[in-house]
Amino acid sequence: MLSPSIQKLIDLFAKFPTVGPRTASRFVFYLIGQPKEKVKEMAQTLIDLKNNIKLCGLCFNPFENGDESVCPICADPSRDKKTLCVIEKESDLLSLEKTGQYKGLYFILGGAVSNLMPENIQKLRIEELKQRVEKGVFEEIILATNPTTDGQATSLYLRQILKPLAKKIVLLGRGLPLGGELEYADEETLSSAIENRK
Amino acid sequence: MLSPSIQKLIDLFAKFPTVGPRTASRFVFYLIGQPKEKVKEMAQTLIDLKNNIKLCGLCFNPFENGDESVCPICADPSRDKKTLCVIEKESDLLSLEKTGQYKGLYFILGGAVSNLMPENIQKLRIEELKQRVEKGVFEEIILATNPTTDGQATSLYLRQILKPLAKKIVLLGRGLPLGGELEYADEETLSSAIENRK
Amino acid sequence: MLSPSIQKLIDLFAKFPTVGPRTASRFVFYLIGQPKEKVKEMAQTLIDLKNNIKLCGLCFNPFENGDESVCPICADPSRDKKTLCVIEKESDLLSLEKTGQYKGLYFILGGAVSNLMPENIQKLRIEELKQRVEKGVFEEIILATNPTTDGQATSLYLRQILKPLAKKIVLLGRGLPLGGELEYADEETLSSAIENRK
Amino acid sequence: MLSPSIQKLIDLFAKFPTVGPRTASRFVFYLIGQPKEKVKEMAQTLIDLKNNIKLCGLCFNPFENGDESVCPICADPSRDKKTLCVIEKESDLLSLEKTGQYKGLYFILGGAVSNLMPENIQKLRIEELKQRVEKGVFEEIILATNPTTDGQATSLYLRQILKPLAKKIVLLGRGLPLGGELEYADEETLSSAIENRK
Repeated sequence: MLSPSIQKLIDLFAKFPTVGPRTASRFVFYLIGQPKEKVKEMAQTLIDLKNNIKLCGLCFNPFENGDESVCPICADPSRDKKTLCVIEKESDLLSLEKTGQYKGLYFILGGAVSNLMPENIQKLRIEELKQRVEKGVFEEIILATNPTTDGQATSLYLRQILKPLAKKIVLLGRGLPLGGELEYADEETLSSAIENRK
Repeated sequence: MLSPSIQKLIDLFAKFPTVGPRTASRFVFYLIGQPKEKVKEMAQTLIDLKNNIKLCGLCFNPFENGDESVCPICADPSRDKKTLCVIEKESDLLSLEKTGQYKGLYFILGGAVSNLMPENIQKLRIEELKQRVEKGVFEEIILATNPTTDGQATSLYLRQILKPLAKKIVLLGRGLPLGGELEYADEETLSSAIENRK
Repeated sequence: MLSPSIQKLIDLFAKFPTVGPRTASRFVFYLIGQPKEKVKEMAQTLIDLKNNIKLCGLCFNPFENGDESVCPICADPSRDKKTLCVIEKESDLLSLEKTGQYKGLYFILGGAVSNLMPENIQKLRIEELKQRVEKGVFEEIILATNPTTDGQATSLYLRQILKPLAKKIVLLGRGLPLGGELEYADEETLSSAIENRK
Repeated sequence: MLSPSIQKLIDLFAKFPTVGPRTASRFVFYLIGQPKEKVKEMAQTLIDLKNNIKLCGLCFNPFENGDESVCPICADPSRDKKTLCVIEKESDLLSLEKTGQYKGLYFILGGAVSNLMPENIQKLRIEELKQRVEKGVFEEIILATNPTTDGQATSLYLRQILKPLAKKIVLLGRGLPLGGELEYADEETLSSAIENRK
């Protein structure tokens, strides 16, 4: 029913995270309604993205600083080089940076898996993480995967892998979030909240 | 914090319908993780879209049939040329076509407005609709705007505009949807459901 | 951990429709905080309910008109005695009465079942409905079960049962509800909406 | 439209927390469908509740231990008498007890208020709390109001009130709850999670 160019673009958008066919078709109809230059600009920005962006050789954060091989955070002399925060994905780095609370370095693992079968483990940057820790001088490694089933299984696995390589391995603090209520909190969260009181 | 190519693409995606900055950044990180050819293909598809797609001169449905000036639906000799269904947007056409129930023609209004101020009315294809109806031989016009506040205000306005031009102007049937429950239905819907019993 | 009176009342409330143990305990703590007379009044109202309320001998609607054996609706001479609306439950009667659109009689079936096994059918007032229809002078029977899976299976079954007994058996009209959108409507609802246009 | 006994009971239920008129009427129709003995049992349980339950003279926890004036928790010699946990309401006590992590005493404040006007403050057991702390031998007071706007305003106020009376005043630990994600956490929660890492 739909013409090929429309259908092809819907199919491409439908592979985006959180996007289904219905939302994908809304995207395409939105683009059809935009001026031609706007859509051309979008196409060019996509091409620029792939031409300019590379992954940091240390933390795998995407960046575009011309000839550099490491990202601005890893290159920043003011960052604390003795603390490494292992995170699942790029957006977690953005979230942590926004707090202004963390001054150490990062490592982007590339996800989290609940089933630790070899084929799942391979999707993560485990070998790269080991090499990074071996090359670094870290006194503290923060396993900042999400406290979800996948994230917790992954952090348990990472702890085991990194134990021989690191002095101190910690997790993010657990407790009640802003706006949370004791009545609806699970027992594990509430136990942590009592234990971490201060 | 983010490099310019990334930020620019996030800003472009954040203008898409239903997309906010957080989802936009997930889209960009997804694209960064895709192979270069995939992203180039996406850029090319965007350009193809704008080069190939035009709006139907009769119903404003986007299509790409080479040299034609009307879309496949308007050109289809088997469609009922005496019935016109006025809809808010392209995706409503898809929804109605999927039912296989409707065999007439369409007109895409380009939205719906609750406040009928001239500057709002101008956003819709009112003049184009009047011309379409004048040129056509319609015996029935279905005002298939959504039964939302905006859609109902718009259909009232359209009825007034089209009255001198059309014999029969109707609305889509109102009633309980599949999966609906009497207990949670509003009085207007329930009244329609009683009235339209059969 | 909780004292017996509290726990017993929580258990009783937890059997109420839509109430789980957490909400049940909120109810009990609310009652503990109320003055003694208020709680006594509630207890008395519960006892009054069971002493005063009886089910209508014709439609099974609960009512409390002293010595009468039929409810005010069935007894009302101004109601249309030739139309019977079969509904799942008491609250559906309230919803339909609020519209002011329906002037006939009701029959409360006592639920709806998707699996038409004899043990499920027995939960409904099927025999009572047959007798009611045989005794009545109905020209139209509206099967107003919900358009859910259960309600639709039940109305198909009722149609089969009532066919030999009634001239005209109808369903509530189907279509888009107030506030609904074409884009999110299922095909069956949209087909009905097109068919019932007017 | 509804008979008086039904309407009166609906009105009483509609005052319960989280219950509106629609849910209240479902409760009443549920009770109408129950056997008479069941409803009488419920009425008796309500009366028992008010006859047997009293509030603990120390923590305001409701209990029914015959002639005692303090609740089982306050009377338990194995509980840590040097720690007091101030909570908003009874159900928070249940939640904390379920963790098995806390061994001290409680004080039920009776709510939380965001606007600290005298008329709001009066709704809470502030004077009773001061007297409790003065009479006790607490080395640590945990202000365990919810980390909501109301709970935080209240804990700030309590801290000010209790400062002259207590050595150590603490809050529950803040951080990511079980199942939480860095990407969706607010900055304050994430800052706490980084700070409380271990």
